[in-house]
Amino acid sequence: MSRRYEDLTGPELSTRITPSSILLLPIGAVEQHGPHLPLSVDHVIAHEVATAVVDLVGEELDVWQLPTMSFSKSNEHAWSAGTLYLSADTMMAVLTDIGRAAASTGAERLVLLNGHGGNTTHLGTALRELRLQFGLKTFLVHPSVPPAYGGSSTHHELGMGIHGGLDETSIFMYLRPEHVDLSKAQRKVPEALDRNEYVKFGGSVQFGWISNDFDAEGYIGDPTGASVERGKDLFEAAVALLSEQLGEIKTFDFGR
Amino acid sequence: MSRRYEDLTGPELSTRITPSSILLLPIGAVEQHGPHLPLSVDHVIAHEVATAVVDLVGEELDVWQLPTMSFSKSNEHAWSAGTLYLSADTMMAVLTDIGRAAASTGAERLVLLNGHGGNTTHLGTALRELRLQFGLKTFLVHPSVPPAYGGSSTHHELGMGIHGGLDETSIFMYLRPEHVDLSKAQRKVPEALDRNEYVKFGGSVQFGWISNDFDAEGYIGDPTGASVERGKDLFEAAVALLSEQLGEIKTFDFGR
Amino acid sequence: MSRRYEDLTGPELSTRITPSSILLLPIGAVEQHGPHLPLSVDHVIAHEVATAVVDLVGEELDVWQLPTMSFSKSNEHAWSAGTLYLSADTMMAVLTDIGRAAASTGAERLVLLNGHGGNTTHLGTALRELRLQFGLKTFLVHPSVPPAYGGSSTHHELGMGIHGGLDETSIFMYLRPEHVDLSKAQRKVPEALDRNEYVKFGGSVQFGWISNDFDAEGYIGDPTGASVERGKDLFEAAVALLSEQLGEIKTFDFGR
Amino acid sequence: MSRRYEDLTGPELSTRITPSSILLLPIGAVEQHGPHLPLSVDHVIAHEVATAVVDLVGEELDVWQLPTMSFSKSNEHAWSAGTLYLSADTMMAVLTDIGRAAASTGAERLVLLNGHGGNTTHLGTALRELRLQFGLKTFLVHPSVPPAYGGSSTHHELGMGIHGGLDETSIFMYLRPEHVDLSKAQRKVPEALDRNEYVKFGGSVQFGWISNDFDAEGYIGDPTGASVERGKDLFEAAVALLSEQLGEIKTFDFGR
Amino acid sequence: MSRRYEDLTGPELSTRITPSSILLLPIGAVEQHGPHLPLSVDHVIAHEVATAVVDLVGEELDVWQLPTMSFSKSNEHAWSAGTLYLSADTMMAVLTDIGRAAASTGAERLVLLNGHGGNTTHLGTALRELRLQFGLKTFLVHPSVPPAYGGSSTHHELGMGIHGGLDETSIFMYLRPEHVDLSKAQRKVPEALDRNEYVKFGGSVQFGWISNDFDAEGYIGDPTGASVERGKDLFEAAVALLSEQLGEIKTFDFGR
Amino acid sequence: MSRRYEDLTGPELSTRITPSSILLLPIGAVEQHGPHLPLSVDHVIAHEVATAVVDLVGEELDVWQLPTMSFSKSNEHAWSAGTLYLSADTMMAVLTDIGRAAASTGAERLVLLNGHGGNTTHLGTALRELRLQFGLKTFLVHPSVPPAYGGSSTHHELGMGIHGGLDETSIFMYLRPEHVDLSKAQRKVPEALDRNEYVKFGGSVQFGWISNDFDAEGYIGDPTGASVERGKDLFEAAVALLSEQLGEIKTFDFGR
Repeated sequence: MSRRYEDLTGPELSTRITPSSILLLPIGAVEQHGPHLPLSVDHVIAHEVATAVVDLVGEELDVWQLPTMSFSKSNEHAWSAGTLYLSADTMMAVLTDIGRAAASTGAERLVLLNGHGGNTTHLGTALRELRLQFGLKTFLVHPSVPPAYGGSSTHHELGMGIHGGLDETSIFMYLRPEHVDLSKAQRKVPEALDRNEYVKFGGSVQFGWISNDFDAEGYIGDPTGASVERGKDLFEAAVALLSEQLGEIKTFDFGR
Repeated sequence: MSRRYEDLTGPELSTRITPSSILLLPIGAVEQHGPHLPLSVDHVIAHEVATAVVDLVGEELDVWQLPTMSFSKSNEHAWSAGTLYLSADTMMAVLTDIGRAAASTGAERLVLLNGHGGNTTHLGTALRELRLQFGLKTFLVHPSVPPAYGGSSTHHELGMGIHGGLDETSIFMYLRPEHVDLSKAQRKVPEALDRNEYVKFGGSVQFGWISNDFDAEGYIGDPTGASVERGKDLFEAAVALLSEQLGEIKTFDFGR
Repeated sequence: MSRRYEDLTGPELSTRITPSSILLLPIGAVEQHGPHLPLSVDHVIAHEVATAVVDLVGEELDVWQLPTMSFSKSNEHAWSAGTLYLSADTMMAVLTDIGRAAASTGAERLVLLNGHGGNTTHLGTALRELRLQFGLKTFLVHPSVPPAYGGSSTHHELGMGIHGGLDETSIFMYLRPEHVDLSKAQRKVPEALDRNEYVKFGGSVQFGWISNDFDAEGYIGDPTGASVERGKDLFEAAVALLSEQLGEIKTFDFGR
Repeated sequence: MSRRYEDLTGPELSTRITPSSILLLPIGAVEQHGPHLPLSVDHVIAHEVATAVVDLVGEELDVWQLPTMSFSKSNEHAWSAGTLYLSADTMMAVLTDIGRAAASTGAERLVLLNGHGGNTTHLGTALRELRLQFGLKTFLVHPSVPPAYGGSSTHHELGMGIHGGLDETSIFMYLRPEHVDLSKAQRKVPEALDRNEYVKFGGSVQFGWISNDFDAEGYIGDPTGASVERGKDLFEAAVALLSEQLGEIKTFDFGR
Repeated sequence: MSRRYEDLTGPELSTRITPSSILLLPIGAVEQHGPHLPLSVDHVIAHEVATAVVDLVGEELDVWQLPTMSFSKSNEHAWSAGTLYLSADTMMAVLTDIGRAAASTGAERLVLLNGHGGNTTHLGTALRELRLQFGLKTFLVHPSVPPAYGGSSTHHELGMGIHGGLDETSIFMYLRPEHVDLSKAQRKVPEALDRNEYVKFGGSVQFGWISNDFDAEGYIGDPTGASVERGKDLFEAAVALLSEQLGEIKTFDFGR
Repeated sequence: MSRRYEDLTGPELSTRITPSSILLLPIGAVEQHGPHLPLSVDHVIAHEVATAVVDLVGEELDVWQLPTMSFSKSNEHAWSAGTLYLSADTMMAVLTDIGRAAASTGAERLVLLNGHGGNTTHLGTALRELRLQFGLKTFLVHPSVPPAYGGSSTHHELGMGIHGGLDETSIFMYLRPEHVDLSKAQRKVPEALDRNEYVKFGGSVQFGWISNDFDAEGYIGDPTGASVERGKDLFEAAVALLSEQLGEIKTFDFGR
């Protein structure tokens, strides 16, 4: 049976969704990803991972998949014509509206599955805002934690597969091979940053950046070695990890 | 070749989209539609119609399909737990962000294809706001014009197939038969309204309403006679009409 | 006895205004209307029609006339120095404040009598917002329905007596003959628009426009044949129609 | 010739209004004024004083009378059902929109003629905001300076003819005798306040108050001795003073 | 024992602060004050006066000193690079947040001690807004009332010791002599203003100004004769006066 | 010579602050910290660390210390009466105003030194917003990285010295011993959380929390073993680390 929230009728919704249900909101982006990847990367990944996770553990954990937010706060790519970004204020307003609706269902847990690194801090803030305003238990997970916010990236990329790099390109190749053109990809690693001890991605000093601060083409990492196989492994690992994370979320109650 | 905006890369976008391109934004909703239809109705219809139209005339007219806005301003259903609605302010903020991005591409025409009647006036306002702020030529079209805003509806429904009625149910049956349960549908026509001369849907006096003002179940019309065949006819007619409308939009320049 | 809301004292207001009272808000504009008409046209018409209607049926239907909003959302004339326009946000904020005050009186019905076509969609949105926020029954009426939103206009003008055209000029001549200078009026009909099947005023495709999109002088229609007699007929017909509309509004309860 | 801004046509406006013109905006209120006065008091006074001043010196000083803002920030009377108040934010938004329009005319001076004491500080703030945003020279004048903000009031009222007191009632009686019912008026002077040295109206400590903080009927002063003669004298004095003030405003340039 | 609000623990706060407590918020600015004074002037004065007053009467009157708002609405100095100003909206938002917190303590009285004249009208508005929203009794006091808002200034300065003039410079010299460089001070009195009867600081016509409207250096007054002795006298007088004012505030109840 | 921003005069500011200057903004909070610590903890620590760092390397690195923001976004303690918190919107508005002022000085680098963990994500968002709006290079550092956002905490506390725990209490004891009452401190570690693999402080699943979600007293950690010696060591280490971080910030240019 469908586990998509939107496939319920209004009356069904009030019986099928209960305090123990988990609502899962995939969040993507429509933003430039360099010359080798289309704008859709982040929301395709978020959507596909969410769908696979719900297929796997939706019934068991009573998870309901909300419609994917296709575009979000991508203003680090505002310089790139056509990037479809929400401002910080608009993004928070949308999340607040979603939080209100989520709370109205009676479900107690809302999980944000974020495919776009640029949303990370703002979603982190939203976790508290939605908890405070609507009493929801709120969670933030990622298909893979963005390297700029503590996630890992390959040594080959000096840990800087931030945007359009090896792992992201590989996962997307696995999902939409026809939309990847590796012939256009180059190594775009800001090597000098690696010599920094503090001010770097994942370093103890966070810094504000927009995506053409490092290079005019606006991607960061080295996608040249991307492959479907690597993508498949990463995708499956993400799905497995998220399934376990949802299992823990299911009963989370602040250590009480 | 794909005519989906999101399938372009950033660099492609700046060459493929030109002043003569048309950007098409399908807008749906995730809102209660009575016991016989799921929450998804409006965005499924908007999305499928948009896709069919772009398949038909996208190349010829240089149309690019933006990602569907799945949920929008559905606050007339706010009373129904789970309806995923944006507030008026949030909705306008999202449209403004989209307008800014659209204008950044160099395209001069943005078409809003609205599947949710409750958006109609707000989108009407947005047409002017986006023209004024970004210089875009803006247009609003519907898979079928909402009867509450001047569109037609069947005599059998006394012209009040407003929400979840015969035509909408039929089109959705054609698109997603497995998600319709006609056995739960009833005739929900506020007959007394028909005796009004002015204050009625499409009358000379507009009135503010929320969807349970008429009946506690929150749908308005008579879906009991809905059929896939009727839906197919309506869908195909909508696609044909929209194709022609886009043709006229293509060269529209205020009668100059 | 006075039926002007503002002529009541605070204590009187709480006894004279009851749930069966109707509050009537005339809404005008202070905006350019071409070289033959002053800025005041829309609010003079709205105010005079409201006053005549209240004189006619105010006692019988228990109608109270709110002070006229002289200026409103006229940003389609923002290009014309001196047009006194409210932004969309300001306009909605004012309407919300009025709605709150109206609901505080205990009256259940608020009627917006709109003399400025450019407000139409925004007021349409406000109908629902005020119903939702304050529980008011809300209505929108016009001295004459704007042709751009479904009203009629003369054949001679090809249905495009949108702004400063034959009918509006005539009504204003009847009310303020000393402020009309027909010697400056010209025919300003965007003839080419009439060849469109869909994208035109009142067509199935709405479009965003500002008032100098068609012609640099910023009026649309053909006022050259305007006359006091025509204006008198139109004015009296408007008053008669609004009186009947108010009669129906008096008992409107969503067909229940 | 008319000196009402709204009686100009768009094209006239750009020739008749010049940098040396003064724009005059009367600002009133629609708010409870006790049982002896109607809601309209403040805007009637502001409007009539403005009209008389413009009749007197409009041609000489090139003053243009903007349409009266009938209602404004009266939230100190929010407790009194029916008071038609704008919130602080809405009021500032309206003033900002007016300031933008005023600046677009080319006039350099905008004078706010405020008939409602409750606006005083907010208008004081607006003076700077409009100067900063639009480069306008901005001024605030009153038919009579509110006693709560440094104006005088009678000894008999212990200087507390704040709202609906002797002077205001008299001026209104002169203008609209048929709308005053002195038989309902009582002395409402918070005598104990007079024993304060600092915390009182016009004292060195300003305090926040709403109009029922002092007495449940919500007016402050002693209107019992009001008369048309007194009102006439005050009105004429106000007009004379404002005429002189406008003369000084005409050439004011920060002492340069 | 400390009378600083921030030195309390959470649990202490709920027992130590009671309805009869007075909360005192010093408000300063970080803004240009000419070449002879540093940016800190206003908040140093507000902070030191508040501290001295609380030392003197804090125990007796149960006053609690909130942390000083160092910067505030100084946009009249926006032209001077480095002035750290809040916009009007931000300032009101901060005050609203403080008001909410203050009301949550159970204290009934909040006193704003304002060291920056440019805040005066906005704080005047806030007095009512906070009373209305949170039920607080609210008060506004000054180390010395700004001449632009009715306070006194020396004859030598023609009453225009508005910003960086004799008195302010003297008080600051007393508090921070090492940060004053009188050798850079000049007489900056807009003499021509003094010839005005109405439009002048403290005149019956308020006017909007920014600090370089009078002179490019942006200070107004004559600090050349400033001295520590004069500053000491003024400071001690301010402390004495504020102590008395707080005594009256302690029992103020609108004359009831 | 003083390195405090506010000790400069306006004219000095424009010569002393140059593109190579670093502006340092300490950000604290006024919020409950359990029964053993006062409300002031976070801003005292931020302020003292900033002062010590500027004393150490201010001249060398051309650092200017902005006035400390005493209170900020502490709404996770909104339940605790008296916590002086800014809303998310107010906080961002204040930061935006500061960013505008900072950019106006000509300095290119703004460093936020955050003493309150609850600000972390919102400041992370602000880094980008200020870079985008004002072109500033922006940085976020902490006296110690909050354990909830990737920083370390003691094993004894199971890594959960989140708020009022061992390290924070120790540092504050070193700075303000007279304001700490260890006799009231208890171990408040949500032990059960430690058994989680993902959903925990610093885990791969972030979660929304407010400070009484874990325990009604609202602090998290084990302050019972806090000491001045430990505090001294931590403080000095923080100052040393921040000095090095500022050194790297000094020349940071995105790896270019």
